[in-house]
Amino acid sequence: MNKDNLMEKIVSLCKRRGFIFPGSEIYGGLAGIYDYGQLGTELIRNIEGSWRYDMFRLHENIFEVDSSILMQKRVWEASGNTSAGFTATLQECKQCHHRFRADHLAEQKITKCPDCGGELTEPKLFNLLVETHLGPVKDESSLTFLRGETAQGIYVNYANVKNSMRAELPFGIGQVGKAFRNEITPGHFIYRIREFKQMEQQYFINPDQADKYFDFWKKERMKWYLDLGMRGENLRFRPHAKDELAHYDKAAEDIEYKFPFGWHEIEGIHNRGDWDLSRHSKFSGADLSEKDPKTGQKFYPYIIETSAGADRLTLAFLIDAYEEIAGGRTTTTKSIKESEIVLRLHKKLAPIKVAVLPLSKKSELTEPAFKVYRELHKHFMCQYDETGSIGKRYRRQDEIGTPFCVTFDFDSIEDKKVTVRDRDTMEQVRIAIVDLVKYLEDKLR
Amino acid sequence: MNKDNLMEKIVSLCKRRGFIFPGSEIYGGLAGIYDYGQLGTELIRNIEGSWRYDMFRLHENIFEVDSSILMQKRVWEASGNTSAGFTATLQECKQCHHRFRADHLAEQKITKCPDCGGELTEPKLFNLLVETHLGPVKDESSLTFLRGETAQGIYVNYANVKNSMRAELPFGIGQVGKAFRNEITPGHFIYRIREFKQMEQQYFINPDQADKYFDFWKKERMKWYLDLGMRGENLRFRPHAKDELAHYDKAAEDIEYKFPFGWHEIEGIHNRGDWDLSRHSKFSGADLSEKDPKTGQKFYPYIIETSAGADRLTLAFLIDAYEEIAGGRTTTTKSIKESEIVLRLHKKLAPIKVAVLPLSKKSELTEPAFKVYRELHKHFMCQYDETGSIGKRYRRQDEIGTPFCVTFDFDSIEDKKVTVRDRDTMEQVRIAIVDLVKYLEDKLR
Repeated sequence: MNKDNLMEKIVSLCKRRGFIFPGSEIYGGLAGIYDYGQLGTELIRNIEGSWRYDMFRLHENIFEVDSSILMQKRVWEASGNTSAGFTATLQECKQCHHRFRADHLAEQKITKCPDCGGELTEPKLFNLLVETHLGPVKDESSLTFLRGETAQGIYVNYANVKNSMRAELPFGIGQVGKAFRNEITPGHFIYRIREFKQMEQQYFINPDQADKYFDFWKKERMKWYLDLGMRGENLRFRPHAKDELAHYDKAAEDIEYKFPFGWHEIEGIHNRGDWDLSRHSKFSGADLSEKDPKTGQKFYPYIIETSAGADRLTLAFLIDAYEEIAGGRTTTTKSIKESEIVLRLHKKLAPIKVAVLPLSKKSELTEPAFKVYRELHKHFMCQYDETGSIGKRYRRQDEIGTPFCVTFDFDSIEDKKVTVRDRDTMEQVRIAIVDLVKYLEDKLR
Repeated sequence: MNKDNLMEKIVSLCKRRGFIFPGSEIYGGLAGIYDYGQLGTELIRNIEGSWRYDMFRLHENIFEVDSSILMQKRVWEASGNTSAGFTATLQECKQCHHRFRADHLAEQKITKCPDCGGELTEPKLFNLLVETHLGPVKDESSLTFLRGETAQGIYVNYANVKNSMRAELPFGIGQVGKAFRNEITPGHFIYRIREFKQMEQQYFINPDQADKYFDFWKKERMKWYLDLGMRGENLRFRPHAKDELAHYDKAAEDIEYKFPFGWHEIEGIHNRGDWDLSRHSKFSGADLSEKDPKTGQKFYPYIIETSAGADRLTLAFLIDAYEEIAGGRTTTTKSIKESEIVLRLHKKLAPIKVAVLPLSKKSELTEPAFKVYRELHKHFMCQYDETGSIGKRYRRQDEIGTPFCVTFDFDSIEDKKVTVRDRDTMEQVRIAIVDLVKYLEDKLR
């Protein structure tokens, strides 16, 4: 498969089949902003659901929160985000006033404005937090930010969660939610965007257990990707070098995925030390420290963070699942052999679980087939399709990753059975309609 | 039950048990902003899940999207939100510059600044959209808004959804997502807030079917509340008077709930006519019209909108389920009879489905009980609790609405059975541990 235009193919498939659309597209779009269609909404929700299950169901001491996007400005001062970390160094054109990332210009050895050839200013720091004002008066007192990461919404709720859940160290708090960054150069489809979803978990621990839990969470998180069928050869750890550690980090490793545009981070595992709780204690006046039950000594819990970008993961899962079969794989395909797309998404992630297809458009088939669809749709996310040849309809489902197709044919009227086709093995089995829900439940579990 | 302090009790329960916390609380809070704790996250997700199931599973022609919060500024000009509708009339104090809603001042016959007694300006229009800037330069060209309603994210995706889903009129598009309004006077806990979640569905139809589908959706939506156990006497329809219709509305009715602070809207059903698609066609240049298959005439689809506020609904469900039993209802309660709280949430909405409680803290009970919990937690949202008397632990679960408590006692070691207690009937039945998942699955279905 040609890797060069793989991204184009993914983008095109996403739009054509209703996974992902450019945001505000009819108005010419908005850089770094995307909307999810029905299939994309299902896919990313399945990814989030699988993450949640892993975090909150398989670990009994991790609690979920859903904190607001808007927080007190002071939160971002305490976190260090208004002064460091969330900044990019930019150069501005003195003529057209467009701004560019200094590191990108340096990389490409560009010294004049790429847009108009004008003279560039010296590099200046620019903050990535998206500003807004809350309340009827727009002034310094009403200034705040759209959160640049969901993690801060967890830290400010540390005491509330601990008390209401009667939790004791070690315990975790996780959340799935939107965050915003004023990225200078959004790009690579939904990889680097300005409005995105994070899945973050903060594990609060005794400082002397930091190394143990850092390793624990590295293993846990890598296992999650592999369990969901991501190919091992496309995944790797990359430890941060000392000089690239964030201001709050004691140690950090990224899980990277081999995108068509290179190895890039999809998740970070960080030992944030006691930076967060100590800073929020200092800035808010709330005492977020713990007391050692043995020594009686006060300490701020260390935090091991696992921070994944849900949109990036969605892209990685799509790329990993994408397969193009030159010449086609089905014998039912018409004489001109085109290439066929099969999206080999894990059945837990597939947006549509089952498609119901009457063999012909005759009402003696479509009516009972639609009934089967209506019943199955109560149990699984389903599609009904009666348009085009059966081979074409199989291909339509293959390219959106539907694990099972149910075909209702002329025999079905008599024997009350349907044919269930497996996306990957292409095996077809005959199943009684009354047993269908149970059969598919077992297969999809 | 004293209705006067019911709201206080709900707010207190929400914080104490981890449903809802004030946003940025350790920094003194932020007006009109709240965070959801573990139980609140589960509750509101169950409400959203039930809405989604009703919309997208029980109707085969309604599609989900998840559009971005940030959209092109032009979207809000087309919708009319920058010029009308989303405005409040305010008066500003000439001395302290605080602003107040003119209608509230008039209602209370206040003519001087309530804060400092200063002179007030004439009433001026103020826009409720929350402003922000996207991109490295902060100027008019980068100005945009946090969406004031999710509906616009649906309209701009109309053609993309229609094409990718091969949909034909009538069909619907729905979404659950955050919206933001710069409310001047947020209040009543999570009723009127500045960052909130909407569950909106837009049903696109042939204009001559507007009355039919307006009635259809009124019935559908009211049924949803009743099916989830909300008391009929606390619900009513309120048609909008001609002079209170929004600029886009041809007809509108609210579903109102009887809150302790009066009857207030929880959902609106609107006939928005062809305002939205005609305006977006005009402003974007994209042709969003349809052609009548019989007459060949072009027309813009009418829209019947159902628009619910998920946070308001959460509050309404909490209030509707809240019951206080003076003197307590359990015989196991200690001699001093306090009042007991039972949250009679529908089992589909209850955040925790099952609690597992070992009868005593002895490890011969806690160890196998914890095992039972770990197994059940894979299937249902569960809690494990071994602290305090069994009566106290039942009450703890009652006040968060847990439908079933599973007690592991000394007999359980021998007979491998546990006692399952029903929150509402208080009936206790003895169930074999091996049958427990199946038993609870049936009960919770």
